[in-house]
Amino acid sequence: MPAVATEAPSIVEYRAWFQCIAGCPVHYSLQDIIYRCPRCGNLLEVRHDLERLRQHPPAYWKNLFDTRFLRNQWPYGSSVWGKKEMVCPEVDNANVVSTFEGGTNLFWAERLGKEIGVPELWIKQCGNSHTGSFKDLGMTVLVSMVRQMIAGGKEIPAVACASTGDTSAALAAYCAVADIPAIVFLPRDKVSVAQLIQPIAHGALTLSLDTDFDGCMALVQEICARNNIYLANSMNSLRIEGQKTVSIELVQQFDWEVPDWVIIPGGNLGNVSALGGGFLLMRDLGIISTLPRIACAQAQRANPLYQSYLNGFREFHPMQAQPTLASAIQIGNPVSVEKAIRTLQMFDGVVEQASEDELANAAARGDRTGLFNCPHTGVALAVLFKLVERGEIRSHERVVVISTANGLKFPEFKIKYHESRLADVVPQHGNFPVNLPADYTQVRDAIRRVLEQRRSGRLTAPPSPSRRGRESVP
Amino acid sequence: MPAVATEAPSIVEYRAWFQCIAGCPVHYSLQDIIYRCPRCGNLLEVRHDLERLRQHPPAYWKNLFDTRFLRNQWPYGSSVWGKKEMVCPEVDNANVVSTFEGGTNLFWAERLGKEIGVPELWIKQCGNSHTGSFKDLGMTVLVSMVRQMIAGGKEIPAVACASTGDTSAALAAYCAVADIPAIVFLPRDKVSVAQLIQPIAHGALTLSLDTDFDGCMALVQEICARNNIYLANSMNSLRIEGQKTVSIELVQQFDWEVPDWVIIPGGNLGNVSALGGGFLLMRDLGIISTLPRIACAQAQRANPLYQSYLNGFREFHPMQAQPTLASAIQIGNPVSVEKAIRTLQMFDGVVEQASEDELANAAARGDRTGLFNCPHTGVALAVLFKLVERGEIRSHERVVVISTANGLKFPEFKIKYHESRLADVVPQHGNFPVNLPADYTQVRDAIRRVLEQRRSGRLTAPPSPSRRGRESVP
Repeated sequence: MPAVATEAPSIVEYRAWFQCIAGCPVHYSLQDIIYRCPRCGNLLEVRHDLERLRQHPPAYWKNLFDTRFLRNQWPYGSSVWGKKEMVCPEVDNANVVSTFEGGTNLFWAERLGKEIGVPELWIKQCGNSHTGSFKDLGMTVLVSMVRQMIAGGKEIPAVACASTGDTSAALAAYCAVADIPAIVFLPRDKVSVAQLIQPIAHGALTLSLDTDFDGCMALVQEICARNNIYLANSMNSLRIEGQKTVSIELVQQFDWEVPDWVIIPGGNLGNVSALGGGFLLMRDLGIISTLPRIACAQAQRANPLYQSYLNGFREFHPMQAQPTLASAIQIGNPVSVEKAIRTLQMFDGVVEQASEDELANAAARGDRTGLFNCPHTGVALAVLFKLVERGEIRSHERVVVISTANGLKFPEFKIKYHESRLADVVPQHGNFPVNLPADYTQVRDAIRRVLEQRRSGRLTAPPSPSRRGRESVP
Repeated sequence: MPAVATEAPSIVEYRAWFQCIAGCPVHYSLQDIIYRCPRCGNLLEVRHDLERLRQHPPAYWKNLFDTRFLRNQWPYGSSVWGKKEMVCPEVDNANVVSTFEGGTNLFWAERLGKEIGVPELWIKQCGNSHTGSFKDLGMTVLVSMVRQMIAGGKEIPAVACASTGDTSAALAAYCAVADIPAIVFLPRDKVSVAQLIQPIAHGALTLSLDTDFDGCMALVQEICARNNIYLANSMNSLRIEGQKTVSIELVQQFDWEVPDWVIIPGGNLGNVSALGGGFLLMRDLGIISTLPRIACAQAQRANPLYQSYLNGFREFHPMQAQPTLASAIQIGNPVSVEKAIRTLQMFDGVVEQASEDELANAAARGDRTGLFNCPHTGVALAVLFKLVERGEIRSHERVVVISTANGLKFPEFKIKYHESRLADVVPQHGNFPVNLPADYTQVRDAIRRVLEQRRSGRLTAPPSPSRRGRESVP
């Protein structure tokens, strides 16, 4: 074991740059405003000087990351910046815009795991974060780099993104912290109320547009390209560098053991390559020696990657995504599809889908065991249940489900579920409030009735309209 | 420095018991179902064997807590259970019901602090937790003890609480994790939509009653007393033991330095005594040598403690709380008032109030700088602004504001604010979405207009109806 490293090593030595994912040889500075390869049009990715990183043995990195993890030394207490040498080494600490990212609970889902026969079931609660979703992990990197560029004299009048809700909340919050103008492009009536109010409250210019996410995505690219505005979507691979720390953190929370499976919901698909990127980097540096299998979970109504998976990824066809409760992944033309397919091929990956009924019931089933997650996590849980049922995931395997956002962003989804008001969903785990006067006897009787029902096991059944009518006094 | 303590000491040696806050000498087991002193009727509190705790020097405790903090050793990674010897030593680790409590960001509010001339302004983000409020800190202790009692053969058919929203969410979630029946008493139409759906989703029996919180509180006490149901309100001082860890964690996050001020919103007032309790315990053990001043922030419409403060705490009169946006502290007859007054007297305390206009504008001002907090945090921020303005808090002092819950629980509050639909509130920091077709030229022009306004400083003014009308295409 090396000595305990409490101080950051001299990180100016570490280098990273943009390079084309197809391998075109040119390097671009992370301070260049560039998202695609000028030669071939492919997306860029951030590459690191692996030789430099390999100068330290794996034990050095594990120890360094553990020493910094959630501690008080700015900015290394953030689980993203605690891995700074592998994320974005050139940002000055003074320019870091951070809300103490990562370190979210890796929740042992003991009850749910027992129910499905997979005792080692863990839910990575990425939604317990500053803006309520995993997007904080990447946005801290992007906005910090923007602050660095502005500090260096670069003219950046604003930062913009298209969003299905979570990205815009994160961009707006981080820009509010740093006092940088933010512009968010949202598809009108396709994000939740909570997701709409986040950028508004943070003072962002919030454009509510008569189109879907794919329309917003096309427009924001044109606006940014022609108006010198900086693009914050995940095609800007600075975001991916922050998001990839979720893999490192997962392994860190398992005392540097690799799980067997990671299940992640997929829409625009930047997160799939980010997840894979973290694992590959750790393997390249000898921090881990195996890779998990990755399952990408799509909503049946926005499943272009699933369709491609069915044909062995030989073809990919963008589609018109249909309205789905999993609104954040209602995306038919995912920007990061090529990176995602490449990742899935390296991780013995699986793509599976969930219907509206499946995702809503899976989310509610999770809630009954103490979770409180977004509908997209519902998609991932539904896919988990399917993979277990068909024996692809086996009972001795250690499984992690990435919960991408907090259920508090989606109260309408949950209320409508329990009120049986979701189209195409038959609630299997419904519950409802009992309205009563503040009267001792009536309250006591209601409690006795329900405890009796619970004892006899009847409470796990969905409420019948008649029982609901009897106990409700509207 | 003592050697690094990675293992828990043999904690069966540590002892704690219930004892009357008025000093009646009888000790009661923490497994007794008892909330008030049978002799004098006062509330009970948990007392610890301080002689035993003092057998270790302060450096031992600081090192032990730092070693465990947010690490992987169950259950000590939870910041509550990491301080187990001082919280609830007799719970077996196997009975602990935890979601990795505490460790929330102590956010340096750099922008807001600069605006008000208090550079050392810190916001303790207790709402970035499993159920979105600071209540998790106490509920993990209570529900763990219930699990222990049930495991020991005690007959506890259910656990119940009255709530203004946050307590019920926490009780329901922890009981769902542990598979224990939960019953929540909510005042009808006086909690937010998100707060109502939390216990429903977790499968709790959710009683929506035609009364206010004080009415729910009276009824739940009667129900519990006469039906052998365990009471989970903060008059059950097991909750206070968990909540007091917020003080220890605060100091820990400042490298064991004590801030000058802590501002906390106050309703039922259990949290004031919990906050004080943590500091007093640390002082008794020599971990700290000074105490902060505590400011309790009340909503003007539910301000019985403020009224009492004005007469030097000579008298206290319960009141009929009026409807307030700060719904979680709409309490006129606080159960823990005596403990709170005792605490404030020891901490050179201040009580201040905030009107509806003040609390809503303070919350929105915070949001503009990257926060996203509940209306009760708005009350605390408004009180901060007042105390700074009148020179009670001075510019060189280090100030911590306890943010009690996540703003995601209160989207309606925020939307109505920005739509100028809150009664008695004139928005000073309003913003609004701009509805547009997905058309390049129109979007570009809207962006240019707003960036130009921002450059000329006009964007900080509240939107005029005409401007709003011009930019909105409803």
